[in-house]
Amino acid sequence: MRWTKKDLLGMKDLSADEIRLILDTADSFMEVSTREIKKVPTLRGKTVVNLFFEASTRTRTSFEIAAKRLSADAVNISASASSVVKGETLIDTARNLEAMNPDIIVIRHSAAGSPHILARCVKQSIINAGDGAHEHPTQALLDMMTIRQKKGKIAGLKIAIIGDIAHSRVARSNIHGLNAMGAKVAVGGPATMMPREIERLGVTVHHNIEDTIRGADIIMMLRVQIERKAICLFPSLREYAKFFCLDRDRIRNAKEDVIIMHPGPINRGVEISPEVADGPYSVILDQVANGVAVRMALLYLLAGGSS
Amino acid sequence: MRWTKKDLLGMKDLSADEIRLILDTADSFMEVSTREIKKVPTLRGKTVVNLFFEASTRTRTSFEIAAKRLSADAVNISASASSVVKGETLIDTARNLEAMNPDIIVIRHSAAGSPHILARCVKQSIINAGDGAHEHPTQALLDMMTIRQKKGKIAGLKIAIIGDIAHSRVARSNIHGLNAMGAKVAVGGPATMMPREIERLGVTVHHNIEDTIRGADIIMMLRVQIERKAICLFPSLREYAKFFCLDRDRIRNAKEDVIIMHPGPINRGVEISPEVADGPYSVILDQVANGVAVRMALLYLLAGGSS
Amino acid sequence: MRWTKKDLLGMKDLSADEIRLILDTADSFMEVSTREIKKVPTLRGKTVVNLFFEASTRTRTSFEIAAKRLSADAVNISASASSVVKGETLIDTARNLEAMNPDIIVIRHSAAGSPHILARCVKQSIINAGDGAHEHPTQALLDMMTIRQKKGKIAGLKIAIIGDIAHSRVARSNIHGLNAMGAKVAVGGPATMMPREIERLGVTVHHNIEDTIRGADIIMMLRVQIERKAICLFPSLREYAKFFCLDRDRIRNAKEDVIIMHPGPINRGVEISPEVADGPYSVILDQVANGVAVRMALLYLLAGGSS
Repeated sequence: MRWTKKDLLGMKDLSADEIRLILDTADSFMEVSTREIKKVPTLRGKTVVNLFFEASTRTRTSFEIAAKRLSADAVNISASASSVVKGETLIDTARNLEAMNPDIIVIRHSAAGSPHILARCVKQSIINAGDGAHEHPTQALLDMMTIRQKKGKIAGLKIAIIGDIAHSRVARSNIHGLNAMGAKVAVGGPATMMPREIERLGVTVHHNIEDTIRGADIIMMLRVQIERKAICLFPSLREYAKFFCLDRDRIRNAKEDVIIMHPGPINRGVEISPEVADGPYSVILDQVANGVAVRMALLYLLAGGSS
Repeated sequence: MRWTKKDLLGMKDLSADEIRLILDTADSFMEVSTREIKKVPTLRGKTVVNLFFEASTRTRTSFEIAAKRLSADAVNISASASSVVKGETLIDTARNLEAMNPDIIVIRHSAAGSPHILARCVKQSIINAGDGAHEHPTQALLDMMTIRQKKGKIAGLKIAIIGDIAHSRVARSNIHGLNAMGAKVAVGGPATMMPREIERLGVTVHHNIEDTIRGADIIMMLRVQIERKAICLFPSLREYAKFFCLDRDRIRNAKEDVIIMHPGPINRGVEISPEVADGPYSVILDQVANGVAVRMALLYLLAGGSS
Repeated sequence: MRWTKKDLLGMKDLSADEIRLILDTADSFMEVSTREIKKVPTLRGKTVVNLFFEASTRTRTSFEIAAKRLSADAVNISASASSVVKGETLIDTARNLEAMNPDIIVIRHSAAGSPHILARCVKQSIINAGDGAHEHPTQALLDMMTIRQKKGKIAGLKIAIIGDIAHSRVARSNIHGLNAMGAKVAVGGPATMMPREIERLGVTVHHNIEDTIRGADIIMMLRVQIERKAICLFPSLREYAKFFCLDRDRIRNAKEDVIIMHPGPINRGVEISPEVADGPYSVILDQVANGVAVRMALLYLLAGGSS
């Protein structure tokens, strides 16, 4: 199995074999981050541009550290500093970057489909680091890496995803990827946060947290985006927490060896209680560690390496 | 011919021989950006500080990539994060940087003459990356590199520069450089955008686009700075475009093998029509690619290399 | 003598032996910054995160240059871009960083005690780069390095610190460190800027500048934080300058070979007159140069090196 795609735009495009190749490659890079000298010369002389039109410390830092551990040069460009304020189109920004000959462009943008536009108009490899409410494939891959690590497999597992399904790129990417790998996905959340015809994506739908997590091997909590418009989709944070906060009592509906995931940053006491976030079921920090390894794997595969 | 200047402050200071040395050096670095491993160890252990008091993704990124391809360490400082907000003078900022012993300071500042002040008070090499409406020498050098690449020479060519001549550091730097190299420069733009006594710089002046570009080998379009005060120099963008937008019809006044340049970011449909920006005469993206090579050449020459 | 502490949180925790170890190590790194190739491979493969919740060009740049001269990878995270805006707690931000496996986290935060919280909850070494009005140990260390350089010793010297003692982390860290090394510290400033029971820290207190600097070997001027609340602690900048600005006349009260220090950025004509800041007694720029060496020493010692 060799990697043949130019870009990583979404989980929807990936076959089970491609997902397995990425996860296997990530497993092999996992060890680099624990060495005394956390650096391999693999991508020396390659340039990775992090083009972030939305602020994201965590994802940008993860990509930057991944690039540097592979000895690539990382160049950060943030929207506020960008030529966008001077009226330039996304395509012109991209073509300009292309002319400077980087190897990989990582893009986060609030408009769904932005990475796809870039991928069509520049020769460089594009990695989607989150496009609007559409996809966030590197998050789904690090989630799946974590599941495989903890459970030894993905096929056949029951995964419950809870929160604002309609506006979550994390949910969408995970649904595509988990389905491809043979898992069974149940989604739950307030009716105002459930997209129409979501069943078509091959998931079961619930409107309360207890039913969603019943018998689950994995619970993925989504972040309530307090700083965005989420706030008008339910009466108050307190109301949301009352019905959808994952606390110790509610976990009892899941399997005994359930693991709890969250893409972060977490809102303690809103979608997840502190004792669950910090508790024995939580693998939230494993997800972050795996994030660096998954991104190293993608940079490596897209830059031409083979596993 | 060896490089002897400590700083690169403006095109006005450069002789034809010095310009040729920079362009020849840039030609030799051009190839590095197209290699599999885009990195040479030339400036290992050197530190390049990008001190940007005005936002500029493209110029900062170009300098950062140039520094990294030469294995120098690049440190970015932007105005918003800077001690300027704490009331420090430019000279004190510069002396503090000097004490940290970088090798080259690249400065962009809205005040004309800022790089010259720095150059006098610190021992490091200063590169002017744009100072107010005064000079932008690295832009002029990459423009001249592009002209030489496409036309095989600069001397004797007719270059038309169109737009807000009065407030354009790009125009000013190009006029000095192109004159030194023996080209003939014509400038055109609305009367409100034409500086007094511009003829003294050795250019011919026109007030409509057709006359300016008649017989031109090269057309350089300047950006309408929508985000700045430009807007009060003409009634509306529509009005500006009506009289000064370079479209397919207007190009017919130039030579058949004319090339079209623009320093970017472009305003499609304002100073340049999309079909011209993306058309066969356009060398806009070559300019960007050459920009990295010109900046590598300058970092190399100022850090003590000889061609 | 070997370094055994995991973190550098404040001068209050350091013994005279530990301070001497840091200063000796810094002395040995001083030379690296003056080489042709200003880089040693000491920390290759180590990652230093600069986590700045307050803007600070100078301190961040100093740490970044220090890290790069030791061949470490430096990752900058600034508050504005950070997940803090998404409602994440400081501890969660820290644990997330921890999971990405950096080696050292440098933190600046407006809340006193923030670095101590981090140090307890993550396994990485924490360096306090300024926490509220509490401590700024790397500034005190570079100050003490400068004193030792110029005077050959610290013990027995008389040091006068003048300005907003109550809100100055620089003053507090220097008082702890200078006392540990056997110097005698006198503090002076307006009554509104003098903390209660300051004598308990082992200093003598004055309310005018002349008495404070009488017989001093060293004068440390503190910055009037014009951009913060300082302004309500005295009627006007003019009034402050009238009583507390260090000018040529007032220096006469000190010893003949006095040296003048300031942590920067300076407000010329407020706390220090231009002719003193730029005059023969001033060692302000030596402080900045020593700052890079002190930070190299700390990164080296915390990453496991021994002197």
